[in-house]
Amino acid sequence: MLSSTLSFAKIYPKFPASLIHPEKLSLSSVATMSSNYRTKYFTQILDHFNFYPKSHQTFQQRYLINNTFWGGAKNDAPIFVYTGNEGDIEWFAQNTGFMFETAPRFKALLVFIEHRFYGKSMPYGGNKDVAYSNASTLGYLSSTQALADYATLIIDLKQNLTATECPVVVFGGSYGGMLAAWFRLKYPHVAIGALASSSPILNFDNLTSPYSFNDIVSHDFRSESENCHKVIKESWQKIEDTAKRTKGLQQLRKSFKVCRNYIDADALENWLGTAFVYTAMTDYPTPSNFLSPLPAYPVKQMCKAIDDPTTGNDTFAKLYGAANVYYNYSGTATCFDLDDDSDPHGLGGWNWQACTEMVMPTDGNSREAYFQPQSGNTKTEPLTAKWHLTLNPDAVGSLLSLGVMWDIRRVLKRFGSNIIFFNGLRDPWSGGGVLKNISKTIVAIVAKEGAHHVDLRFSTKEDPKWLQDVRKQEVKIIQGWISQYYHDLAHLSFKHPCTFQLSTF
Amino acid sequence: MLSSTLSFAKIYPKFPASLIHPEKLSLSSVATMSSNYRTKYFTQILDHFNFYPKSHQTFQQRYLINNTFWGGAKNDAPIFVYTGNEGDIEWFAQNTGFMFETAPRFKALLVFIEHRFYGKSMPYGGNKDVAYSNASTLGYLSSTQALADYATLIIDLKQNLTATECPVVVFGGSYGGMLAAWFRLKYPHVAIGALASSSPILNFDNLTSPYSFNDIVSHDFRSESENCHKVIKESWQKIEDTAKRTKGLQQLRKSFKVCRNYIDADALENWLGTAFVYTAMTDYPTPSNFLSPLPAYPVKQMCKAIDDPTTGNDTFAKLYGAANVYYNYSGTATCFDLDDDSDPHGLGGWNWQACTEMVMPTDGNSREAYFQPQSGNTKTEPLTAKWHLTLNPDAVGSLLSLGVMWDIRRVLKRFGSNIIFFNGLRDPWSGGGVLKNISKTIVAIVAKEGAHHVDLRFSTKEDPKWLQDVRKQEVKIIQGWISQYYHDLAHLSFKHPCTFQLSTF
Repeated sequence: MLSSTLSFAKIYPKFPASLIHPEKLSLSSVATMSSNYRTKYFTQILDHFNFYPKSHQTFQQRYLINNTFWGGAKNDAPIFVYTGNEGDIEWFAQNTGFMFETAPRFKALLVFIEHRFYGKSMPYGGNKDVAYSNASTLGYLSSTQALADYATLIIDLKQNLTATECPVVVFGGSYGGMLAAWFRLKYPHVAIGALASSSPILNFDNLTSPYSFNDIVSHDFRSESENCHKVIKESWQKIEDTAKRTKGLQQLRKSFKVCRNYIDADALENWLGTAFVYTAMTDYPTPSNFLSPLPAYPVKQMCKAIDDPTTGNDTFAKLYGAANVYYNYSGTATCFDLDDDSDPHGLGGWNWQACTEMVMPTDGNSREAYFQPQSGNTKTEPLTAKWHLTLNPDAVGSLLSLGVMWDIRRVLKRFGSNIIFFNGLRDPWSGGGVLKNISKTIVAIVAKEGAHHVDLRFSTKEDPKWLQDVRKQEVKIIQGWISQYYHDLAHLSFKHPCTFQLSTF
Repeated sequence: MLSSTLSFAKIYPKFPASLIHPEKLSLSSVATMSSNYRTKYFTQILDHFNFYPKSHQTFQQRYLINNTFWGGAKNDAPIFVYTGNEGDIEWFAQNTGFMFETAPRFKALLVFIEHRFYGKSMPYGGNKDVAYSNASTLGYLSSTQALADYATLIIDLKQNLTATECPVVVFGGSYGGMLAAWFRLKYPHVAIGALASSSPILNFDNLTSPYSFNDIVSHDFRSESENCHKVIKESWQKIEDTAKRTKGLQQLRKSFKVCRNYIDADALENWLGTAFVYTAMTDYPTPSNFLSPLPAYPVKQMCKAIDDPTTGNDTFAKLYGAANVYYNYSGTATCFDLDDDSDPHGLGGWNWQACTEMVMPTDGNSREAYFQPQSGNTKTEPLTAKWHLTLNPDAVGSLLSLGVMWDIRRVLKRFGSNIIFFNGLRDPWSGGGVLKNISKTIVAIVAKEGAHHVDLRFSTKEDPKWLQDVRKQEVKIIQGWISQYYHDLAHLSFKHPCTFQLSTF
């Protein structure tokens, strides 16, 4: 078992983008995709909430735009906007085929906006080293500022396109889904509705059990086979016992084909645990290439490797087989690097967010879970270690401005409208999601068999019926929002009279 | 007529607090009031939207609290909060008798929170000179930060009182009413509803005609007598003609009992214009002491002075009589100071807000209006003059974060709930108010005979029936919000399950 290690804290809170390794992904689809949009840059305000001269600093925010299907401003045709999350926006566009595939039906303009401090949208002259250098520069990295970015960019874009009456619908998955939902709640005059896919919007404070995340990981494997679950659960003790024996580490290195000289039990357990967590998250019904190239139903494939009778009682061979599904589905790797501490994709940014605003407790371990409780404070340690900040827990409260994360059912029952919360219950994050309808127009779509924002992915011919149905349902709801918007546009005297009528006295 | 003068720009945009002279008011009622609450201070965060260390600066925010009528936390009794506007919070408490008078019925706790940078709630160690010194310190003076202050204070107070389930209703008049409405829209999880009295929430951008404000002023006087209107309208030319003649200024000084040596036509016109504008704004049906001690129906009294047959054709005597109603109702003044440029109440703060966020065009003058179009840019001149800032018009956009000021009817028709917009149509600000119901729960109460947030004032035995009815209607609606809240509290499973249920799979 993972003994009092903080190694998992490194990837806490485990949003997918924290683990992307695009260099390992097939880039052919990215190349194909890039012909599907133009890349543009918008001069964005660094600080939306202060008026002092410093706040007039700007940065170049990247966005992708596709007008192939757009019905045009004259027809008030819709604009679909992806509210980018913690990573390269091209990567999110590539994994949000739903927008491309539904655009023709809606005659929608497509816009994907990159989140500040990620990808190429780096403040401080695009200098990432400066932007990430300290708490003063990273102070401008917050979801509140990001939402204001999106509002500013959308309004400006609509003005430039003379498209001020075109309805905007926002889309997002994971953290991007949270942003989409918050955007609808905070900027109802900018977006008429939001599709928030796999957004663990309740995974804050004590609204969601900290055990739910790891319990769902276990549940996913256990649902495939009781033996698979048992082997994984008992493996940690075996690894630790072996590591303690003479030449034990040598044995482990050999069993798991570890490349580097350095190895210890913690690093190995972390490497295996990562594979289990992210495979559970991306347990898609078709082959995918999101975090890592994977076969269809990868959890099933992992358990198949573990349950393989040819490996008999050799737990390490079984675990190695499972790890291969995640780390080496393409079959090209000859050895594995357990200690990949490089940060090629700017995860420093997410670590900052995870310690300031996006404090999402997911590290609880019940008896069901594969991992043991960790010592230390995973919330604040990275912060104190990296930025020498002592965080005031009460100041973790830009959350406050995000509005409705407390008593969401009661508050949104009587407030707000037009949000779809999609969750797949095989996704460990679904425990922090909205799983029941809140009102007539704030609705939950739940897919028992679904994983992390599977609905947003490009469709395939092999998609199961439940997934097709989910997407149909989403399209129908969005169609309803847009129809209603056009109705209101035509029938409501929504504009305040511009000339004051004395006769009204 | 006011010829190409910027003198009116000095008091632009004419919110009441810009003109208060408490030293001229009877202070007996303030003394009485102060026994009605305890004064407390809350350690408030200076910058709610950044996480860098500087943002951990705090300041002492004043609030007043009265628990005489409170039903207590155990009974989930309501909390009524006044969202303070641009001035001393005691002054607003004194003029918001409605909260004191309805508290017993609702068993409500009363809280009046002072707006940052006003009264005693001064950042930078309470040092107003520092706080107001430059654009860098004033950068933290914004409505967005103020709203976050209110949310932070309310949540903290509720926790301290173990009153987390107590419903909060926010109240405000004028700018405070705008804050109350925005608060409900931005922090729906903190306040269940808002009474926004005389809040010109549409007086932005080009949503409201810039002519409406001055047209209503004219209309108020004209509604009393056509002659009154005519005398005022023609008086400016007479003043200017006289001023140009030999010894003309001397004559004017004598006619208007001007104390100081200095006098010119502009200053005199500004002095008179101020009286007309603020008397229209506070044209209450009973004697009042809000901006200045005034009789009941002061517009009528001014016109009575102007129409007085004993002054014959002496226009200046007529105008002097009218000015006396506003400036000298107590009858103690022996001469008047036209050039009172002192700033005893920190109007610098409001000037800053009026130039950055609260840019509310009210300076249009139609043929009906008493004043002529002004040269210069009243929006940005004070800013460039005082703070040497060239404002980026697009950056006047923390407004953006305030949400729904554009297409308010269309947006709020399908979003949000529980807001009362009260407007009295004799109030020049009512042109920028919400005058029609937006939805079933976002409603407009309009009183043809009402002036600036008259509904919030202490009741008197002389209150006309329409005013009694307005207050009854407001109480009934607020009662409905609270009843519904208790119903939801009892019946909705609003809390997200804290223990994850594997059985839900």
